[in-house]
Amino acid sequence: MAATELISALLLLLLICSSDISSSEKTRRPEPCKRLVLYFHDILYNGKNAQNATSAIVGSPAWGNKTTLAVPNRFGDVVVFDDPITLDNSFRSTPVGRAQGFYLYDKKEIFTAWFGFSFVFNSTRVKGTINFAGADDIMKTTRDLSVVGGTGDFFMTRGIATLMTDAFEEDRYFRLRVDVKLYECY
Amino acid sequence: MAATELISALLLLLLICSSDISSSEKTRRPEPCKRLVLYFHDILYNGKNAQNATSAIVGSPAWGNKTTLAVPNRFGDVVVFDDPITLDNSFRSTPVGRAQGFYLYDKKEIFTAWFGFSFVFNSTRVKGTINFAGADDIMKTTRDLSVVGGTGDFFMTRGIATLMTDAFEEDRYFRLRVDVKLYECY
Amino acid sequence: MAATELISALLLLLLICSSDISSSEKTRRPEPCKRLVLYFHDILYNGKNAQNATSAIVGSPAWGNKTTLAVPNRFGDVVVFDDPITLDNSFRSTPVGRAQGFYLYDKKEIFTAWFGFSFVFNSTRVKGTINFAGADDIMKTTRDLSVVGGTGDFFMTRGIATLMTDAFEEDRYFRLRVDVKLYECY
Repeated sequence: MAATELISALLLLLLICSSDISSSEKTRRPEPCKRLVLYFHDILYNGKNAQNATSAIVGSPAWGNKTTLAVPNRFGDVVVFDDPITLDNSFRSTPVGRAQGFYLYDKKEIFTAWFGFSFVFNSTRVKGTINFAGADDIMKTTRDLSVVGGTGDFFMTRGIATLMTDAFEEDRYFRLRVDVKLYECY
Repeated sequence: MAATELISALLLLLLICSSDISSSEKTRRPEPCKRLVLYFHDILYNGKNAQNATSAIVGSPAWGNKTTLAVPNRFGDVVVFDDPITLDNSFRSTPVGRAQGFYLYDKKEIFTAWFGFSFVFNSTRVKGTINFAGADDIMKTTRDLSVVGGTGDFFMTRGIATLMTDAFEEDRYFRLRVDVKLYECY
Repeated sequence: MAATELISALLLLLLICSSDISSSEKTRRPEPCKRLVLYFHDILYNGKNAQNATSAIVGSPAWGNKTTLAVPNRFGDVVVFDDPITLDNSFRSTPVGRAQGFYLYDKKEIFTAWFGFSFVFNSTRVKGTINFAGADDIMKTTRDLSVVGGTGDFFMTRGIATLMTDAFEEDRYFRLRVDVKLYECY
C-alpha cells in the first residue's frame, strides 16, 4: 500500500510539474493589497434557542434531523447562517457586519465542511461584500478558503481567507477567526 | 451603544485603509469589457403548480416545509431553480437561456438571500455559462453579486452582476433584472 | 416560434457584441499554465450501503426522499459528497485527494446539475485545494465548470474544468473525468 501511495504521489507531482510553475512559487507570493482580520460567531438552532440562534440546519441525511447534528461527524448536515462579524473575539462586541450563507459537513470519518458565504458590510464607513468559497478542513489549526469576488468597497477583489477555530463549544457555539488577505484590488 | 458602534466603525475603517487602496478607488473603476442586461423568472412550487413551477424548496428549517415558505422571512429555506432568461421583462418572451442553481434565505429579521447559480446559454449564436455567487440583500433597490467565472463565449470572465427585483408577487412569482458587467474578458 | 427565437438570438448576439470583444476571442485563448487530469468516484447512499457510500442526499423536493433519487430527473435533490480522487479511472487506485462539496439536480425535463466543491490534496508532495463552481449539463459529452480559486500549491489560481462522465451505473455509481486547465497561476 505504501508503495502504491508513493507512486500515486509521484505521478500527481509529475502531472503538476509538467508545467513551468513549480512549487518554488511559494517564495514568490505577493503581499496582500488589503488585509482584514475579523471574527464571526455561530449559534446553531437546537429546537429551544430560536431567540439567540444565528444559524439553522436546513438539510440533513436520511439518518439526521433538523435540531440535532448528525452522527457520525455531522456528515450531510447543511446549515444556513446569518452570523455577526466582530473586530475582536467577544461575542458581545458591536457587529461590524454579517457573515451570511451556508456550510455543510461533508465527511463521515472526521469533521470537514464546505463553505459558500459572504461578509456583508453596510455601515456608513464601509459598504460592500466579500464572497468566499472553499473547503474547511476543520481538524487543522488553520485552513485556507478562496475569496472569489467582492463588491462595493471590495469591488472585484480576490484573495485567500485563512480560518482558525477561535472557540468551539460542542454543538452550541463556534467562533471563527478569519484572516482575509486580498491579492487583487481595483 | 452609539459610541461603541462609532469606535467599531472607525476600527474597521482603519483596518481597511491600512493598505494603500483607499475608497477613492471608486472613481478609478474600469469600464466593462462586456455588458448584458437580462431578466429571469422564478415560479416556486407550492404543491399544486408542478406544471408551471420553475423552482422548488428542497431544504427548510425544523419549523418549515417544502410547499410553503418558512415564517419568519423564509429564513432557512433552500430553493433549487431552473428559470427562463429573457431579453425583456415579459415572462412570455422566448427564453435565450436558463438561470440554474440555488438560493437560500438567510436572515430571520428581514428578507436576504444567498445565490449560487449559472446563466446557461446554448443557442446557435451564444454558447457558454456565466457563474455567479454572492449575497442578495433583497430589501435594497439594487445589490451586487460576483461573477466568479465563465466558460465558452464567456471564457474566464469576472465581473459584477447588479440585481433588481423587477416584479414580486408574494410567494408565487418573482422576476429579477440582472445587469451583468464583465471587467475581465479573454 | 422559430422566427421569435431567431430574433431573440440576434438580439442577444447584438448585446454581447456591443463590446469590442467578439467571438473571435476563441482563437486567442491562452495555453494553461498548469494542467491536471483526474477522476473522482461517487457512490450514493441508498439506505443500505452506509459502509461504501461516499455521498448522501441531504435535500429533496416535496415529492422526494433521502434514499431514492427524485422523479423526474432527480430535480431538486441536493447531494453532499466526499469522493476519492484517483489518477486513473479505477475505483481501486489509491486516492491522491478528495473531492468535497455538493451537487444539486436542477431541471425537470433532463439531467442537469450545479456543483460547488473542492479538490483537497494533503499528501507530502501536494498540498492545497482547487475550488470549483458551475453548471453541469450532464447530457453533453463534455461540459465546462469554473475554477474560481485555489489555495496552497494552487494559490490564487483560476481556470476551466472540463467534466466528462466516464462511467454511470444508474443511481449507484458515477465517475467523472476532470480535465483541470489553469490559466492563472501565481
